[in-house]
Amino acid sequence: MAGKDIPVSPLAVPFPELPTLAGLRLGTAEAGIRYKARADLTMMEFAPGTSVAGVFTRNKCPGAPVDWCRAALRGGKARALVVNAGNANVFTGRAGREATEATAEAAAALVGCKPREVFLASTGVIGEPLPHERLTAALPALHAGLADDRWAEAARGIMTTDTFPKACLRTARIGGETVTIMGIAKGSGMIAPDMATMLCFVATDAKIPPAALQPILKRAVDRSFNRTTVDSDTSTSDTVLLFATGAARHPRVTTEGGPILRDFSRALSELLLDLALQVVRDGEGAQKLIRIDVTGATSARSAHRIAMSIANSPLVKTAIAGGDANWGRIVMAVGKAGEPADRDRLAVGVGGTWMAREGGVIPGYDEAPVVAHMQGREVEIAVDIGLGSGQATVWTCDLTHGYIDINGSYRS
Amino acid sequence: MAGKDIPVSPLAVPFPELPTLAGLRLGTAEAGIRYKARADLTMMEFAPGTSVAGVFTRNKCPGAPVDWCRAALRGGKARALVVNAGNANVFTGRAGREATEATAEAAAALVGCKPREVFLASTGVIGEPLPHERLTAALPALHAGLADDRWAEAARGIMTTDTFPKACLRTARIGGETVTIMGIAKGSGMIAPDMATMLCFVATDAKIPPAALQPILKRAVDRSFNRTTVDSDTSTSDTVLLFATGAARHPRVTTEGGPILRDFSRALSELLLDLALQVVRDGEGAQKLIRIDVTGATSARSAHRIAMSIANSPLVKTAIAGGDANWGRIVMAVGKAGEPADRDRLAVGVGGTWMAREGGVIPGYDEAPVVAHMQGREVEIAVDIGLGSGQATVWTCDLTHGYIDINGSYRS
Repeated sequence: MAGKDIPVSPLAVPFPELPTLAGLRLGTAEAGIRYKARADLTMMEFAPGTSVAGVFTRNKCPGAPVDWCRAALRGGKARALVVNAGNANVFTGRAGREATEATAEAAAALVGCKPREVFLASTGVIGEPLPHERLTAALPALHAGLADDRWAEAARGIMTTDTFPKACLRTARIGGETVTIMGIAKGSGMIAPDMATMLCFVATDAKIPPAALQPILKRAVDRSFNRTTVDSDTSTSDTVLLFATGAARHPRVTTEGGPILRDFSRALSELLLDLALQVVRDGEGAQKLIRIDVTGATSARSAHRIAMSIANSPLVKTAIAGGDANWGRIVMAVGKAGEPADRDRLAVGVGGTWMAREGGVIPGYDEAPVVAHMQGREVEIAVDIGLGSGQATVWTCDLTHGYIDINGSYRS
Repeated sequence: MAGKDIPVSPLAVPFPELPTLAGLRLGTAEAGIRYKARADLTMMEFAPGTSVAGVFTRNKCPGAPVDWCRAALRGGKARALVVNAGNANVFTGRAGREATEATAEAAAALVGCKPREVFLASTGVIGEPLPHERLTAALPALHAGLADDRWAEAARGIMTTDTFPKACLRTARIGGETVTIMGIAKGSGMIAPDMATMLCFVATDAKIPPAALQPILKRAVDRSFNRTTVDSDTSTSDTVLLFATGAARHPRVTTEGGPILRDFSRALSELLLDLALQVVRDGEGAQKLIRIDVTGATSARSAHRIAMSIANSPLVKTAIAGGDANWGRIVMAVGKAGEPADRDRLAVGVGGTWMAREGGVIPGYDEAPVVAHMQGREVEIAVDIGLGSGQATVWTCDLTHGYIDINGSYRS
C-alpha cells in the first residue's frame, strides 16, 4: 500500500488551532478497513435542525456514496456524517449500494434519526466491496466517544496518502452577529489502485435554510476547488458538504438568503479556497505551487479555460518542476485551449516580470528575477490575452518524478 | 541541448526500404542552425505540375511556417519543400514572417518557381529568431546535390530528439494502375525549451488535383494522427503535407475525386496511421504502446472523446507504465469525459480479458493473462460503454520517468 514512505510535502502548511462548534461532535475509530493501526473511520453528529448543502463530482461514473448523498441532499437535513478511508466504494454495483444503506442505517440508529439524514463518503481503493460490517461494528463505540474537540483527529482520519492534515477556520458576520465556519479536507492522496479523491467537510454554527445554503456553497466551490487542478483527472468521489448546525444567534435567514449572507458567502469562499490550495500543496509529487492569472480574455469563462489549459499541460508542469520559466510552452497551452487568442497580442510573465509581448520575446528582459522566482516554492504565471476584459485565476502544482513514483507502482 | 543521451525507444521499428518516386528529388545539408555536425536542413523539389494538400495544427498560436503554408496552399501547387530542425520559428513576430519569406524566395530562385510554390516547416526551439541567413546560405549547394534516393537522410534531417527515423511506403490502385505513396515523419522529440512538434511529409506519383487531394488528406489525418496522443499538448507547428507529382500514368482524376480514389484513400490512411504510430512509439519517455478501443458509445464522436479521455489520463498512463491493469482508473477516465456513460453498463478489458462488467469487477476473472499482457510492450485496452454502437480506436504511450527527465530539464 502506498503512503507510508511518502515524505511530507515541502508545500505543507501548519494545522490551525480550531475551536469547538456548537451543535457538532465528532470522532474517529480504527475500523481496519484497509489501513492498520490508524484511524480510518470518522463520524460527525449534528444537532437537530442542522441543514446541509453539497456539491459532488461531475464524473459520470460516481461512487455509491456520492449517489447516496445526492439523494439524501433532497431532504436538506443532516444529523450525521460517516467517512471511511481505505475503500472508495466505487464501481461496486449492488454491493456498493447495500453498503451505503447498511452504514447509514447503523449510524441513524445510534443518532436517532432517519437514514437519509446520514451523509456518507468513502475514499481509497476502488472496485473492491466495502466491508461495511467493519464500519457498522466500529460505529457504536465511536458514537459513544464523540466529543466537540476532535477536529485534528478527524482531519487525519479522512486522509489516504495525504502527507499532512488540512483544516481551515473563518468567521463571518450575519446581521451583526459573528458565526464560525470550520472545514477539513483531504486531497490528492492515493492508495493503489485508486485515483485521487477530494473530500471536504465544512460546518458552521450559522442557521441557514438548505435552499439558501446550496447556492452559496455552489458558488464558493466554483471560486475555490473548481479553480484548482492537480493532474486533470476528475475523481469519481469528489464531495464537498456544508453543515449548518443553527446554534448561533443571529437575525433570521430566509430561504431566499440575500444580502444578509454576503459576508458569510465571502468567508466560505475564502475558507474553501484555503482548503483547496492545501489540497494542491499536497498534490501527488508536488514540489511547487503554481498560480496562473489570465487577463484580457474575451470572457471570464474563456479566461478560465485558458488558465486550465496551462494548468493541465504536462509540458508546462514539467518545465516548472525543472525550474524553467518556459514561456514558449505557455504560449502553446494558450493556443491549444481553443479559446479566442491572437498570438501577436499575447503577453506572458513570470513572477512579475513580463518575458514576452505582442507575439515575441521582449528583447533584453531581465532574466535574473525570473530565475530567482522559479527557484522558489511558489510560482506565479501571468498571461494577458489582449482581446478583452475576461480574467481568471487557477492554481496547480508541478509534475515531478514523485507523481510517476506514486502512480506507477503496482497495486499491492 | 537535449537529445544526445536519450536511448532509442524500445518501441522503435526498422526503417523501411524505399524506392525512388518519379518527379521528386531530395537531400539534406548541415546548416548549423542549432545542432552541430548533423544535417538540419532538408529540401524536396517537385516536378512542375505537382499538386499539394495540407493539414495543420489547430493550436491558435501557430508558428510562422504554418501561416506561410496555409497561405501557399491556396495556390494548390508545390515545387519545393524546405524544412529545418533546431528552431521552430514560433512566437517570433515580424522576424518570423520575414524568415519564411526570405527562405521561400531563396528556394524559389533556385528551383525557378514562385515563392508561394515553396512550402516550409520548422521544428525546434521556440521564441528565438530563426537565423534564416544560414538556411539561405546552405540552400544552393543543397539544391545542386538533390537526388531521388535520399529518403533516409531526409527522415533523419527533420528529426529533433526523435530516437529513430520514421518512414512508410504504400502502393494504391487508381483506375487499374499502381501508384506509390511514401512519407516521412518526425514526432515527439524535443529540444529544450520546445514543445513536441509533429511533422509529416508524404509524396505520391499520382496525378490528383488539389481540390480532390485535400479532402482525402483531411480524412486520412482524422483516421491516423488525430487518433493518437502522447501528452495532450497540441504543438504550434504540427504539419502534414501531401505532394502529388503526377508522374504516374493512370486514368484522369477530376477535381471531384470520387470512387476512383477509393483505394488511394485507403492506402494513404494506412500510411499515415503507420507513421502516426511510429510517432507514438517514439513518444517522449515511451516504454509501451497503448491501443484503446471504445465500443458501445452513443456515437463515434462520443467514443472518440471517451477514448481520448482515457489516452490522456495521467493516472491511466502512469498505471500502465507500472504494469498495472488499473481498470478503476479507466472507469474514472470514462466518467470524466463528460460523454454519455452508465457506470452500471460499463465493461473494461485488457489484452482480451474482460475484467469488469456491469458496474463491477468480474468475480474470479483470470488475472494471469492480464498480468502477462501488461508486461509486454503493447497494451490493449477495451471499453464497452453499453449504450449504443459508436466506436473509436486511439493510440497513446505510457507516462514514465523518461517524460519528466526529458521535459523537466533546464534550457541550456
